[in-house]
Amino acid sequence: MRRKNPQSKPSVAIEQLAWELPCYIDAPTEPLDAENLERIHATSLRVLEEIGVEFLNDEALDYFKKAGCKVKGQNVRIDRGLVAEILPRAPSEFEVIPRNDKRRVTLGGKNFLHSSVASAPNVSDIEGGRRVGSRHDFQNFLRLTQYFNCLHFVSGYPVEPLDLHPSIRHLDCLYDMLTLTDKTVHGYSLGSERIEDSMEMVRLAGGYSEAEFTATPRMFTNINSTSPLKHDWAMLDGAMRCARRGQAVIITPFTLSGAMAPATIAGALVQQNAEFLAGLTLLQLVRPETPVVYGAFTSNVDLKSGAPAFGTPEYTRAMQISGQLARRYHLPWRGSVASAANCPDGQAVWESLASLNAVSSGHCNMIYHSAGWLEGGLCASYEKFIMDCEMLQQIIYLNRPLDLSDDALAFDAIQEVGAGSHFFGAEHTIRRFRDAFYAPFLSDWRNFETWHEDGAKHVATRANATMKAILNEYQPPPIDAANHEALADFVARRKAEGGVATDF
Amino acid sequence: MRRKNPQSKPSVAIEQLAWELPCYIDAPTEPLDAENLERIHATSLRVLEEIGVEFLNDEALDYFKKAGCKVKGQNVRIDRGLVAEILPRAPSEFEVIPRNDKRRVTLGGKNFLHSSVASAPNVSDIEGGRRVGSRHDFQNFLRLTQYFNCLHFVSGYPVEPLDLHPSIRHLDCLYDMLTLTDKTVHGYSLGSERIEDSMEMVRLAGGYSEAEFTATPRMFTNINSTSPLKHDWAMLDGAMRCARRGQAVIITPFTLSGAMAPATIAGALVQQNAEFLAGLTLLQLVRPETPVVYGAFTSNVDLKSGAPAFGTPEYTRAMQISGQLARRYHLPWRGSVASAANCPDGQAVWESLASLNAVSSGHCNMIYHSAGWLEGGLCASYEKFIMDCEMLQQIIYLNRPLDLSDDALAFDAIQEVGAGSHFFGAEHTIRRFRDAFYAPFLSDWRNFETWHEDGAKHVATRANATMKAILNEYQPPPIDAANHEALADFVARRKAEGGVATDF
Repeated sequence: MRRKNPQSKPSVAIEQLAWELPCYIDAPTEPLDAENLERIHATSLRVLEEIGVEFLNDEALDYFKKAGCKVKGQNVRIDRGLVAEILPRAPSEFEVIPRNDKRRVTLGGKNFLHSSVASAPNVSDIEGGRRVGSRHDFQNFLRLTQYFNCLHFVSGYPVEPLDLHPSIRHLDCLYDMLTLTDKTVHGYSLGSERIEDSMEMVRLAGGYSEAEFTATPRMFTNINSTSPLKHDWAMLDGAMRCARRGQAVIITPFTLSGAMAPATIAGALVQQNAEFLAGLTLLQLVRPETPVVYGAFTSNVDLKSGAPAFGTPEYTRAMQISGQLARRYHLPWRGSVASAANCPDGQAVWESLASLNAVSSGHCNMIYHSAGWLEGGLCASYEKFIMDCEMLQQIIYLNRPLDLSDDALAFDAIQEVGAGSHFFGAEHTIRRFRDAFYAPFLSDWRNFETWHEDGAKHVATRANATMKAILNEYQPPPIDAANHEALADFVARRKAEGGVATDF
Repeated sequence: MRRKNPQSKPSVAIEQLAWELPCYIDAPTEPLDAENLERIHATSLRVLEEIGVEFLNDEALDYFKKAGCKVKGQNVRIDRGLVAEILPRAPSEFEVIPRNDKRRVTLGGKNFLHSSVASAPNVSDIEGGRRVGSRHDFQNFLRLTQYFNCLHFVSGYPVEPLDLHPSIRHLDCLYDMLTLTDKTVHGYSLGSERIEDSMEMVRLAGGYSEAEFTATPRMFTNINSTSPLKHDWAMLDGAMRCARRGQAVIITPFTLSGAMAPATIAGALVQQNAEFLAGLTLLQLVRPETPVVYGAFTSNVDLKSGAPAFGTPEYTRAMQISGQLARRYHLPWRGSVASAANCPDGQAVWESLASLNAVSSGHCNMIYHSAGWLEGGLCASYEKFIMDCEMLQQIIYLNRPLDLSDDALAFDAIQEVGAGSHFFGAEHTIRRFRDAFYAPFLSDWRNFETWHEDGAKHVATRANATMKAILNEYQPPPIDAANHEALADFVARRKAEGGVATDF
């Protein structure tokens, strides 16, 4: 039964943590000493100076020529002097403010933000199996992303709605993202019209003037280099357009060690860093102070099969060192929670939780794919989404300060209870009963017999039921009627114009 | 097919990491600053001075009286002066040397050791379901413990062999432990005869004289306090007997926050620390320099149901702070990998991996229950055992130094490959092909289609097959024939004597 009145009742599907902007409270894990960190940095500068990076975009090449770089065809060599001059221009910390101001997020420093799975072509649940993504699933994942307070932004299309024609897909998708959620959204840099439409829709949904829109980041894009050492036209075009309108850009080299990058973590990081710095340099030439995020996706492949691997020891070190590099440059950084498993089983959990620990221990600011990723990104899983949110809540809770008051030290309670009794009925326990400990929404802590009699449900089965209860309870966030109308009109107009021309 | 000749072939069931004694290479996570750590310490000293701990053992009470403690009935109050005098007597680091010298282990410092599940009354596999433990299962878990190089010691009976009568159970069990494995073993402190028999069997299996046996720890026992604030007769008796014969003792208060300890982590740690320090004081009075391990088992319960919880944010902080306390006292410390899940599903993995990360980030030296634990210790799972070993291997691998050579930084390889190509065929990759990355034995990284055509096996199903292959390949470690005979003779003699008297 879907309830009609959003004001009628508080959340009943699960009891979750309230919305908060969490911060890391432990020291980050830093695998490299200062000398070796400098060696990674210095080698990546040598790559920029002696090998260069290809930019497949004439406009980008012009910026580099004007800045005095050596440009030969599409190869750009950037000297360390320019990098040093450019680096301080990018902000070390900035806010992104979506249409609901209460959902604003801070990127950088000790802040961390989690997000939904993004860009999966397939979707699965344990009842319907695995299938290609549709708008129905796309919308459901947005609803889940909106629902969970442990998810702070929408990092792309959770699953690709393949039933929408690419000429108008971005219009329907942005419309859904901006109406089914009120969190910060992402626009894909897949051609000039698409990214401009995306920015325009974010502007309309928030009711901003162009000046208000460009005054502060309201959204972001993510661009990937075509590793090794290449930045493609569409990504560069989209990033430059975002930069010009003051929106945030994540630059994420796609450096899988052993495939598109050297078969050593140190070497893959050198390459990641070079590709990132090349992109950063461009965007600061386009518009100084463009908010840029250091994107890190370095993992390894299985060299015998070429299969990508995630949550490995190599991934952990790659993420932690990426954090060191980002901090060296005083930039926010982006990582991912990832897994190569094919179903939401134990392997999916150990790879995802190892990834989550990797980015958390490295103080990652902006975490992609935190909920729902399977198959190295090829599938968005409903059950995995719910399971991941349970783990995310625990990481957020872990970063809350521990109660170290005199009352928490509990000398009086220990004296009251004495030897050989128990604390269940102690005044100290009763007083703290409600909020003493983290309360998971998905863990089953009943004894075996009770669990068994109740159907012996594995966690993925329980997650499926939780997912349905949440979708049943979901209510879209309010949106200003005039802004909603402007947004809908824009979609209608652009569709009438045929959207973006495609050759199919 | 069981192969007959142990020399005939190397391991074929899986390719695993070689035996090594790993060390932590990152800095430990320390939630408390120096001032708050002192507050925990000081409050636990107040508990010892003003509330006291009960010792249900007259011999123990005599030691305390002789040392000038206030003893009222069974309540012992220990003043901080005695604790301060006692603490430096216990070694900060020591070796335990089992009958195979190559399996010797070091406890303390940055060393870490993992072990099998211990003391579970039930056992399960996905084919046979859950049932009470038998000697058949007990032996199988010992074989698995011997097989895996990531497991460094046997922490008790992996599963309780309930088909062996308690009067002679310890004889058969120690015999199995000392012949099916050559790793360090544990003896239960469940009565004078049992612990003395256990020590005697370890002595005979190694062929040591009494002087050789007592010269260095050859085994260990673990005692739990009956929290709150009570140490029972049998545990104290066993610990004192081990201390007198130079064997190692772990003292592990059973301080579940909200049940046997205050409903705050800080309070539960105060109590844990007081109960530990009381036990430590006794053993150093019995025999100065007795090797003692700081045991930490503090977790929380679900206050609504009383169910114990593991791998929670509370557990993580309790473990990390226990590490700080142990280091403050210059003592090795023991923690656990634990889970309350009822089957080897995603919950079991996230709770176990969160526990593993808790003890690892806190620099725990001696880790119990690292492989196979389910149901908060009530069940040993074959599949979980295999899954856990995969995670343990990754933690061990993660603690190996990263290759930061100039060749690893890979400038030349990046130059060789250039833009828009790939590294699969690069000379740098080919040279490193074999050992570039950690190779899991259980993860399935094939694409969905291949995995699906091959039966869509979840990780627990794959673990079941791996377990069978390992048991099929298992060969017992060699043992000196004379020592073996002495051991068997001892078991036969003690059985003929009726073992340990029981009233059933």
